[in-house]
Amino acid sequence: MGKVLMKGNEVIAEAAVHAGCKYFFGYPITPQSELVAYMARRLPEVGGLFLQAESEVAAINMVYGAAGTGVRVMTSSSSPGFSLKQEGISYLVGAELPALIVNVVRGGPGLGNIQPAQSDYFQVTKGGGHGDYHTPVLAPSTLQEIIDLTEAAFDIADRYRTPVILLGDGMLGQMMEPVEFKELSERKPEQKEWATTGTRGDGKPRIISSLELNADALEKRNELLQKKFTMIKQNEVRFETFETEDADYIVTAYGTAARIAMNAINKARKDGLKIGMIRPITLWPFPEQPFIATRDRVKGYLSVEMSAGQMVEDVRLAVEGKAPVSFFGRTGGVVPTQEEIYDQIIQLAGGVEV
Amino acid sequence: MGKVLMKGNEVIAEAAVHAGCKYFFGYPITPQSELVAYMARRLPEVGGLFLQAESEVAAINMVYGAAGTGVRVMTSSSSPGFSLKQEGISYLVGAELPALIVNVVRGGPGLGNIQPAQSDYFQVTKGGGHGDYHTPVLAPSTLQEIIDLTEAAFDIADRYRTPVILLGDGMLGQMMEPVEFKELSERKPEQKEWATTGTRGDGKPRIISSLELNADALEKRNELLQKKFTMIKQNEVRFETFETEDADYIVTAYGTAARIAMNAINKARKDGLKIGMIRPITLWPFPEQPFIATRDRVKGYLSVEMSAGQMVEDVRLAVEGKAPVSFFGRTGGVVPTQEEIYDQIIQLAGGVEV
Amino acid sequence: MGKVLMKGNEVIAEAAVHAGCKYFFGYPITPQSELVAYMARRLPEVGGLFLQAESEVAAINMVYGAAGTGVRVMTSSSSPGFSLKQEGISYLVGAELPALIVNVVRGGPGLGNIQPAQSDYFQVTKGGGHGDYHTPVLAPSTLQEIIDLTEAAFDIADRYRTPVILLGDGMLGQMMEPVEFKELSERKPEQKEWATTGTRGDGKPRIISSLELNADALEKRNELLQKKFTMIKQNEVRFETFETEDADYIVTAYGTAARIAMNAINKARKDGLKIGMIRPITLWPFPEQPFIATRDRVKGYLSVEMSAGQMVEDVRLAVEGKAPVSFFGRTGGVVPTQEEIYDQIIQLAGGVEV
Amino acid sequence: MGKVLMKGNEVIAEAAVHAGCKYFFGYPITPQSELVAYMARRLPEVGGLFLQAESEVAAINMVYGAAGTGVRVMTSSSSPGFSLKQEGISYLVGAELPALIVNVVRGGPGLGNIQPAQSDYFQVTKGGGHGDYHTPVLAPSTLQEIIDLTEAAFDIADRYRTPVILLGDGMLGQMMEPVEFKELSERKPEQKEWATTGTRGDGKPRIISSLELNADALEKRNELLQKKFTMIKQNEVRFETFETEDADYIVTAYGTAARIAMNAINKARKDGLKIGMIRPITLWPFPEQPFIATRDRVKGYLSVEMSAGQMVEDVRLAVEGKAPVSFFGRTGGVVPTQEEIYDQIIQLAGGVEV
Repeated sequence: MGKVLMKGNEVIAEAAVHAGCKYFFGYPITPQSELVAYMARRLPEVGGLFLQAESEVAAINMVYGAAGTGVRVMTSSSSPGFSLKQEGISYLVGAELPALIVNVVRGGPGLGNIQPAQSDYFQVTKGGGHGDYHTPVLAPSTLQEIIDLTEAAFDIADRYRTPVILLGDGMLGQMMEPVEFKELSERKPEQKEWATTGTRGDGKPRIISSLELNADALEKRNELLQKKFTMIKQNEVRFETFETEDADYIVTAYGTAARIAMNAINKARKDGLKIGMIRPITLWPFPEQPFIATRDRVKGYLSVEMSAGQMVEDVRLAVEGKAPVSFFGRTGGVVPTQEEIYDQIIQLAGGVEV
Repeated sequence: MGKVLMKGNEVIAEAAVHAGCKYFFGYPITPQSELVAYMARRLPEVGGLFLQAESEVAAINMVYGAAGTGVRVMTSSSSPGFSLKQEGISYLVGAELPALIVNVVRGGPGLGNIQPAQSDYFQVTKGGGHGDYHTPVLAPSTLQEIIDLTEAAFDIADRYRTPVILLGDGMLGQMMEPVEFKELSERKPEQKEWATTGTRGDGKPRIISSLELNADALEKRNELLQKKFTMIKQNEVRFETFETEDADYIVTAYGTAARIAMNAINKARKDGLKIGMIRPITLWPFPEQPFIATRDRVKGYLSVEMSAGQMVEDVRLAVEGKAPVSFFGRTGGVVPTQEEIYDQIIQLAGGVEV
Repeated sequence: MGKVLMKGNEVIAEAAVHAGCKYFFGYPITPQSELVAYMARRLPEVGGLFLQAESEVAAINMVYGAAGTGVRVMTSSSSPGFSLKQEGISYLVGAELPALIVNVVRGGPGLGNIQPAQSDYFQVTKGGGHGDYHTPVLAPSTLQEIIDLTEAAFDIADRYRTPVILLGDGMLGQMMEPVEFKELSERKPEQKEWATTGTRGDGKPRIISSLELNADALEKRNELLQKKFTMIKQNEVRFETFETEDADYIVTAYGTAARIAMNAINKARKDGLKIGMIRPITLWPFPEQPFIATRDRVKGYLSVEMSAGQMVEDVRLAVEGKAPVSFFGRTGGVVPTQEEIYDQIIQLAGGVEV
Repeated sequence: MGKVLMKGNEVIAEAAVHAGCKYFFGYPITPQSELVAYMARRLPEVGGLFLQAESEVAAINMVYGAAGTGVRVMTSSSSPGFSLKQEGISYLVGAELPALIVNVVRGGPGLGNIQPAQSDYFQVTKGGGHGDYHTPVLAPSTLQEIIDLTEAAFDIADRYRTPVILLGDGMLGQMMEPVEFKELSERKPEQKEWATTGTRGDGKPRIISSLELNADALEKRNELLQKKFTMIKQNEVRFETFETEDADYIVTAYGTAARIAMNAINKARKDGLKIGMIRPITLWPFPEQPFIATRDRVKGYLSVEMSAGQMVEDVRLAVEGKAPVSFFGRTGGVVPTQEEIYDQIIQLAGGVEV
């Protein structure tokens, strides 16, 4: 299969199909509606099922139901719709069910607009619903990376029995790039020994539930969840660094903001400035290691976000006051330009001789 | 009015009535159902309106509608129900509408149980919904304090045009203590010049909305929101300290956990240990100042929570690596005992001679 | 109070207020939305409550809830919305709860259009929901008659503990006529000994329910219902006749169709034709008596309806084959003209010399 | 395929599968839940789709959606659930969409109970929803007949583009009898030239709608519908007679009541009484012909129903006063016994010498 030119939202959808996802439940919302439309057409072709739910709340609960049978299942939405799914996500975590949930972030808060944003960082990384939990969050910055991370997301979901979030933004969803898919192979769905597929009169019923009225028992379950979160932190952290070894200053950004920041850094390097880059790919677990490895040496960090400053808090937690952490962001659907970021770098670095 | 013995949930309700709240929209969920039941009976007595909505989502949107007319309005729920309100809360923030939202936290994640917990800290302090926002969060630790903070919550809501969260837990909601209310006075509802109460053919319609399709305009609105958040941080931080001046170690806790921790600290002090206490009353804005004031001097902090460790993150952000920060928590509805906390203190302080 | 010029939908609403109705639950649908809007403004003025429900199904169930407390309560809708209420109406009958339900009929079936029609005759008279039941149906033909029949409807509802239907059509709802209301007096709401208003710890709880799992017991309840229906048939039949004594042919029609038919009959009388008129005012119970009184004498009946022929079935049941029964109708929102009806009369009477 | 012993509800389901039905949307309600459960398991086996809707209203609207694509689709419910579908049925009629709707009638009105009844006769035969319409209603009285009539129902639905109702009752649904199915053959689904299956960029979109805002145009559509109803009356009437030729008295009954009445008639015949039977199989169109053929000759008719008297009205319309029409019924879920019916026959026939 050669390269094909596709829209980001469609790439997520096709990547999910390639990853063996046959079930989609969702409700259309801009700027991710192409994903829903693609699945409506595509899933029947692979013997799957697409269902447009009557609401975002219904969609996430249908995901819960399907996930309980052990199949690969997903939903997708954009910011307001994602907020409506918070209760359902907490239930998926509590019942330890694997699923993929896509958030193609748009400008907020409230109705906001349909332009790209990264202002849902807290809601996806801190456990936007109730109870002590986190979900792995994968943040691609190119359409090709979407393909890899969508498959990885389903694998992580199955490996740890957890919902996983793929975090995009309106720009990633709407942009077109050439991408290359592997040959579509008939994946044998994994047999899951916990799945509730019916006993057919043979054996004890399996039970999937997040209810546990006894406090001690619920604490035990929470301890197991916390152990799982620790394992995920140990095994699943993903990030990319660029010339951090000799860097005086390190820019950090993810997703669309990272693409643009990278251009600014390249220009700064050409101008003789020693600027490095840390690009978190998993937002939770947050890649603390590259910060710890550099914090005693660099003169400062700059977190660039399409938000009023959210990831910067995780950067500060990783840096622990060992170096100054600055922030630059645009909000409301405004995408920062390469020039703006370059200017921020210059300002940070105390000017440059040109 | 002398002292009366009441349940915490009822105290919240009556305190809201005293604060001039005449409208309640909600959906019953344990362990806060007494609040709903109390309002159903009480509000008609003061010429108000109680409405049990068809769902948590409906309830928060009814709050949006009523808040738009400028009246004092509230809803309440417990963890799963609160998660369902995340979209609505983000809309209230975006449309700058004042309202009180109560979360009587229970064990999670998922259905969990109906025992007391503090595991919704992230969801209430980080902006559990989409977009860049925070809402003031008030966390009382006694029933009498509920009365003060409920009134304060409504005042802050009106002053800044923002939803405010009152964070309780199942223990605070279910326990009984003697409380004293001020005489109920007929509060004249404040005239709000932005309220949409109908033009009656006279003057231009006022518009309340969180929609702003233009990115630059939405960024402007976000900047105004951020300014508001900064003002709230400057003016509305509340906390209580106890013998932090000479403390070697400082315990920090809020709500029910703070009540119990205080007993443990008292015992430790009797045993000659120099232990202090910082009790955040506002969780957002988080009281950084008492940590900044002590972090260069103390040997360590201990965050005690009924969660797997959430507030501890804000403590670390405030301490910035200047002193070790430990954590002790119980989850799943288990309430830590005074003895457990005392043991943690001892362990932290390196033992005590008895 | 002199005469005022009002729209039919508003007359229904104000007449209900005059009849002591203080509670309205509904959902807007053309051509009766003015009724809903009027109530939204009017009920708070008389200390009542207006609530726009989230659906027609919700509205009728809210009526059930309010009716159970013994207050005068109503809802209104138009054809598709009325169909959605069929389950609820059956529940009101089964639980023996008084309420007023207005149907301002529009063209059907399906979405149809918003023009006047009488094609819901079967659904209102035969018990459109499940189970053996009928509800009294009152069909005014002028706006002034609306005032009388609305009050009568509430009285019948209370007297027999039954939902009552007021059947209008788009023309009656939208037309304007001068009407005169009596002085609005503060009606003391009737004390209803079956109403579930709370025991306040005193006495046995009253129970309102349509559930009766035991077949013999449910049959007993059905026998009581049938007795009630027989009493209503004996006491509450309403109709109007016009020169039936010497009539060769009798036209029968109700509501808007009756107004227009009356003009055609007047013209026929002027032209020397002996035409009489029977105008059912209650559609159930259907006025059989004027048909029985004339059927052995007249040469024929003509049922004129804004439908494909529904009431004509009840006419045939009353006439029992003793005289020919013809039908003329227009459907789909077309209102028959005086000329058309006159032509039908001529045709029936075998021509007229002019 | 030999005989198999099955429950009535399951027979309906399997008969539908045999008739080529691959889509089921419904909501469980006793006493027809086995039908829903059977379909949930069975439809995936034949490449079909089962979906439990969020409500009865949703289910009938999903049927509308699926029917629009030309596939064979069904839903089923029991009395209260059927009432909730009235709006949707009217829409199916207005949009001329074929579908099967099963009503396994239980005792009413309201919640009633879950015992067998026939008290939904009016609601299924008179067009329980709004607008001028009827739907064909098939009423089997044995499980084997269910198989034939279910296939016939789908054929009639397709032939006339109309929803068709299969009317059972709790007894038929719950009883077990040996039945024989034909070999399941892979029915090629009929190509329907009106179905909205997507133009794929080729040709004009087809439109399915019941909306027609213009009154004249809607009247035209109603005239076409009426023509269709006339054709159905001419072609699709089904009934069974038993020894009506020499009968002094004729009993008429359908469904479960007919089974029991038949036994009573057999006994009466043995006792020398000339009793015949007319068993309507289609309730709409009602079989008037066997009544017309006998009404001038017999001494009387007896309508036996599990209701307070509904079909008896259609009997009277058919008999037109030419002979007395009596009624015997039981309600509330009570099934009449053979002895009771025999006694009624004796009473009618003026006693019998034994």
